[in-house]
Amino acid sequence: VPAQRLWPETVVAFPALCEQVSAILGAWGMSQNDVAVTTQHLLYADLHGIDSHGCGMLRHYHRGRQIGALRMDAQVTVVRDDGASLLLDGGGGLGHVPSARAMALAIERARNLGIAAVSVRHSGHFGAAGTYVAMAADAGMIGMATTNTGRPALVPTFGREAALGTNPIAFAAPTAHQPPFLLDMATTTVPVGRVMTAWRRGEVIPSGWALDERGDPVTDPGQGVRLRRLTPLGGSRSLGGHKGYGLATMVEILSAILPGLDRDVPKSHAAWRVGHFFLVINPARFRSEGVFQQDLDDLIDRLRSTTPLQASQPVQVAGDPERQAQRTRQMTGIPLPRSVLEDIRYVSREAGVPYLLESP
Amino acid sequence: VPAQRLWPETVVAFPALCEQVSAILGAWGMSQNDVAVTTQHLLYADLHGIDSHGCGMLRHYHRGRQIGALRMDAQVTVVRDDGASLLLDGGGGLGHVPSARAMALAIERARNLGIAAVSVRHSGHFGAAGTYVAMAADAGMIGMATTNTGRPALVPTFGREAALGTNPIAFAAPTAHQPPFLLDMATTTVPVGRVMTAWRRGEVIPSGWALDERGDPVTDPGQGVRLRRLTPLGGSRSLGGHKGYGLATMVEILSAILPGLDRDVPKSHAAWRVGHFFLVINPARFRSEGVFQQDLDDLIDRLRSTTPLQASQPVQVAGDPERQAQRTRQMTGIPLPRSVLEDIRYVSREAGVPYLLESP
Repeated sequence: VPAQRLWPETVVAFPALCEQVSAILGAWGMSQNDVAVTTQHLLYADLHGIDSHGCGMLRHYHRGRQIGALRMDAQVTVVRDDGASLLLDGGGGLGHVPSARAMALAIERARNLGIAAVSVRHSGHFGAAGTYVAMAADAGMIGMATTNTGRPALVPTFGREAALGTNPIAFAAPTAHQPPFLLDMATTTVPVGRVMTAWRRGEVIPSGWALDERGDPVTDPGQGVRLRRLTPLGGSRSLGGHKGYGLATMVEILSAILPGLDRDVPKSHAAWRVGHFFLVINPARFRSEGVFQQDLDDLIDRLRSTTPLQASQPVQVAGDPERQAQRTRQMTGIPLPRSVLEDIRYVSREAGVPYLLESP
Repeated sequence: VPAQRLWPETVVAFPALCEQVSAILGAWGMSQNDVAVTTQHLLYADLHGIDSHGCGMLRHYHRGRQIGALRMDAQVTVVRDDGASLLLDGGGGLGHVPSARAMALAIERARNLGIAAVSVRHSGHFGAAGTYVAMAADAGMIGMATTNTGRPALVPTFGREAALGTNPIAFAAPTAHQPPFLLDMATTTVPVGRVMTAWRRGEVIPSGWALDERGDPVTDPGQGVRLRRLTPLGGSRSLGGHKGYGLATMVEILSAILPGLDRDVPKSHAAWRVGHFFLVINPARFRSEGVFQQDLDDLIDRLRSTTPLQASQPVQVAGDPERQAQRTRQMTGIPLPRSVLEDIRYVSREAGVPYLLESP
């Protein structure tokens, strides 16, 4: 498909998008409660400008369901509960429901015990990791979330081929007057979706995002998507790429090795199965009530008042770009490229629900 | 000092270096037990090739002691103990003793509770973060350690000046037959010591490590050390520098904001005071005994067998370079540049202990 066919974008109202996604998930046989939780956490990404992790995933989920790799009636179970540490089983469905449950459990336990970790096995794509750590910050807690990702995309330092996923890390901490600190990052230089967006827009990608079979930089985004060989954060060895690779391995250990891999999954389903890790720390167990939040406000103030290189571009703090997107999109709607709208139209038709996003 | 005066290096036997460092610390008034703990964790860095964090720090410690910023008789106290979460106070001394105690406590608690976090305030430089997470892996546990660092060195994305330290993260996980996974990384592209090493060797530094006042790359290591404006991991905004900056802020939150800052410290002492964060997870609370270790072996095997770009340079795993240095240095000794030997000679004389590292 030539890139220009997928562009420009159409702006869709957020409530309509919620309704459309809920209708599809309901028609797929998801329980009413799971539809609500999945829609909320899936569309967090669209609302916050993380376009690669939101409703653009629906066609992919549809395919997973078709081949029997994703159950829509998955039951989340508690495999083991030791108070401050729990292991959940996602039941082979999408990751949003088990992840929201895991984070809620971690928050509840950390409130009483100071810290808690919940690990989830046998789960699926959970959307943007930031949506779960935001739950922790909203509850006055420090939160961390990691997930492994199914298809290899990260080329280890000195390697020729991809061996790990884009394995994101999210971290949030509560504040008093500032918006929460919220870091949500792939451990590759950019996520796969960022290369796809460049392709869709007909842009060239910067040297350093993606590699070819000889380890040379790729600047054609189409080739970048096709080869799927992303650099770890840092890029080359001399600029610290081994650190991004190390962080991606840490995420693999916490998200896949700690809860346990699915060993008896058919090969065609393996890329759909992932695990997650959630950690919550209660700052009130370390500092007097509210003091952590005030000190974090001060740190954020100090960072924002760092002298900028250009007066027009002040220093930001993790979470700022997502909040800016949220403010705009909540008012004006979500810009969706043609390809995503066509995917949603197709998935709606297949699910037997009306397509609500554009007039015929 | 012209760089060539500081070069070449002299190789010193490891036991002699231990004896020298112990003699200095003892003469500074440190208790016998604290001398042993500090020497072990300080020289872990020299033994593992992390030359910026080992005995080269002694002159700096000497200065801190002279101006009254570092107590050698510091008492570590438990400020709060909630079982799975603890807050320690380092008592205003070096960080090695409170950090070893914090990690030992975290291991003990995680063994029973599944997870534990220990935060340390009012502490000092703790050496290489890897030495503490290695304790966790040796005990069959997953360990994480972070520390903030006193003098600003990291330039936030869009900023002109340094606003955070090099704020390292270390993470280790236990294995069955493989050596443990052990990641130990500054959240800047390189630590300050790496720029100093280049200067000492008369090398040019790659574009992307350090910046000048206009945000342009610096390639003269002398200028790099003088300006002390390092890029966050990732470098520029388009290559993900905001992620390194975000990780450094996460480390600041866990290490300085969570345990609490020293607000009433004299300004001249402030850069000496830092905090740390230690996290331990017991994999046996998630997986059957030993299975985590076997699965991690498999992951490491798989990563090592990734097709390399060049047959002569196989894909490595975090911890490999440090272990290679350790194997060599344990046998042949520690190579120390002239400047470090002269610092140790000076510090020994000032402390009134014999200089043991070179014949007169």
